[in-house]
Amino acid sequence: MDPLKPRLIPMNRRRRIYEGKAKVLYEGPEPGTLIQHFKDDATAFDAKKHEVIDGKGVLNNRISEYIFQNLNDIGVPTHFIRRLNMREQLIREVEIIPLEICVRNVAAGSLATRLGIEEGTQLPRSIIEFYYKNDELHDPMVSEEHITAFGWASPQEIDDIMALAIRVNDFLTGLFLGVGIRLVDFKMECGRLWEGDMMRIAVADEFSPDSCRLWDMKSNDKLDKDRFRRDLGGLVEAYTEVARRLGILQENEQPRASGPKLVR
Amino acid sequence: MDPLKPRLIPMNRRRRIYEGKAKVLYEGPEPGTLIQHFKDDATAFDAKKHEVIDGKGVLNNRISEYIFQNLNDIGVPTHFIRRLNMREQLIREVEIIPLEICVRNVAAGSLATRLGIEEGTQLPRSIIEFYYKNDELHDPMVSEEHITAFGWASPQEIDDIMALAIRVNDFLTGLFLGVGIRLVDFKMECGRLWEGDMMRIAVADEFSPDSCRLWDMKSNDKLDKDRFRRDLGGLVEAYTEVARRLGILQENEQPRASGPKLVR
Ligand SMILES: Nc1ncnc2c1ncn2[C@@H]1O[C@H](COP(=O)(O)OP(=O)(O)O)[C@@H](O)[C@H]1O
Ligand SMILES: Nc1ncnc2c1ncn2[C@@H]1O[C@H](COP(=O)(O)OP(=O)(O)O)[C@@H](O)[C@H]1O
Ligand SMILES: [Mg+2]
Ligand SMILES: [Mg+2]
Repeated sequence: MDPLKPRLIPMNRRRRIYEGKAKVLYEGPEPGTLIQHFKDDATAFDAKKHEVIDGKGVLNNRISEYIFQNLNDIGVPTHFIRRLNMREQLIREVEIIPLEICVRNVAAGSLATRLGIEEGTQLPRSIIEFYYKNDELHDPMVSEEHITAFGWASPQEIDDIMALAIRVNDFLTGLFLGVGIRLVDFKMECGRLWEGDMMRIAVADEFSPDSCRLWDMKSNDKLDKDRFRRDLGGLVEAYTEVARRLGILQENEQPRASGPKLVR
Repeated sequence: MDPLKPRLIPMNRRRRIYEGKAKVLYEGPEPGTLIQHFKDDATAFDAKKHEVIDGKGVLNNRISEYIFQNLNDIGVPTHFIRRLNMREQLIREVEIIPLEICVRNVAAGSLATRLGIEEGTQLPRSIIEFYYKNDELHDPMVSEEHITAFGWASPQEIDDIMALAIRVNDFLTGLFLGVGIRLVDFKMECGRLWEGDMMRIAVADEFSPDSCRLWDMKSNDKLDKDRFRRDLGGLVEAYTEVARRLGILQENEQPRASGPKLVR
């Protein structure tokens, strides 16, 4: 059977593999596949702050689909296969590398604080940072030295990850520039994708306003999760605006659970 | 005049170039030289904790002399020329690279805390860390990405620094092993040493129990600045023990300001 044509599994019989802060992973229809379900939960500051924001999951599922599909199309290896429904997408299971890879173009957030650079300052060049993905330790920043010493990734894998990070940054910078949005920074995750005996590094997890800092180029308005982190309000409106500019939502559509109408 | 044979400058007529937390730099007798003066001051936690510990400066001057002289002898480029007196040494002026380079063999201090590893655990291999030398920002950890993006050092300079750090770690590990001491970690600084138009990276600043973690191999007693940081007491006794094992102090000598007798 073609793994890309999954049979439908009734919701209540699916095996839940993992429940994270913003998503749930279910067993997929074929070995090596998973179903990624986008929840409406928003968390920040090691989940000390938590809220359910009606509509966020639906928007992130769509925005992430759009970005991953385009990355696939330009030949960046990713986990994404296809969107299944409003909140779910079919993905390839990867062996997640326990790093959050953060690419920064403009100083913001922890970089601005730690290095004493005013938020909004263009960086001399893009900077790639690694954080060890561990909630208990609060995702500490690490360098290649820690990553290789503790075996989280090999030097070759780090090189592959950095090359992917640069490609993704180039693509996303261009994509958002085209719709009047400044890509300040984003976070991505990578994993080992096995195809028989062959392994390659693929981009996994999600790309959405939860994991990117997106500033409107004219007003500097934040169109991302900082609206939640900094209690600015209007999160769903901002994410809707991003989706609309990317051409995912039709004008006047509202992605509320009550009755969203999504195109494509 | 031979720059290695300085004329004596009366204390009160010397120009003070810089006063740091533990040392003072004076103008040297020849262009391109400085006099490094070791104070008795001990500081920790961004100088929030401060004490004057009678005898520490004299011991550090001697221990640092001993280590730097031996590094020179094995061909590691350093700033060290010669010790001048109890508290002072003649050094070559370098353009300090604003990094604290920390080499770790055993988990301790911030690495143990940040990565959740029990203090005393042997690391899978030595790990080199970089901290941006900036008291106001509390010396934040940085990676090669930050260092090259902000121009603190070039990729080639980072390679040179890491090669020097490995050589120093090999030498110090052996030296301390020979006298029953475990080199847990140490911090070093590097600078650009100009010789005409030629520049090379040299090791600068100091090597002493202020900048190394040194544990007695039998008892695991700390013979370093953690005695001060953690209020364990007996700091001068511990530093004296290190000096004595290295053969710098004769048996029964006390390096007090009142009347230390130092050999060599
Ligand atoms: N293709 C994939 N294969 C396996 N695991 C994945 C894949 N893509 C993402 N993941 C993992 O699934 C989880 C997604 O749920 P999320 O709510 O983001 O979790 P978390 O709270 O751990 O960040 C993450 O832990 C992520 O690392
Ligand atoms: N060879 C050298 N040339 C120039 N500066 C040096 C040299 N060696 C060390 N330094 C600098 O001198 C200072 C030594 O004093 P210290 O008390 O350690 O200062 P700090 O409080 O800045 O650490 C340090 O700032 C160090 O970077
Ligand atoms: Mg996540
Ligand atoms: Mg210092």
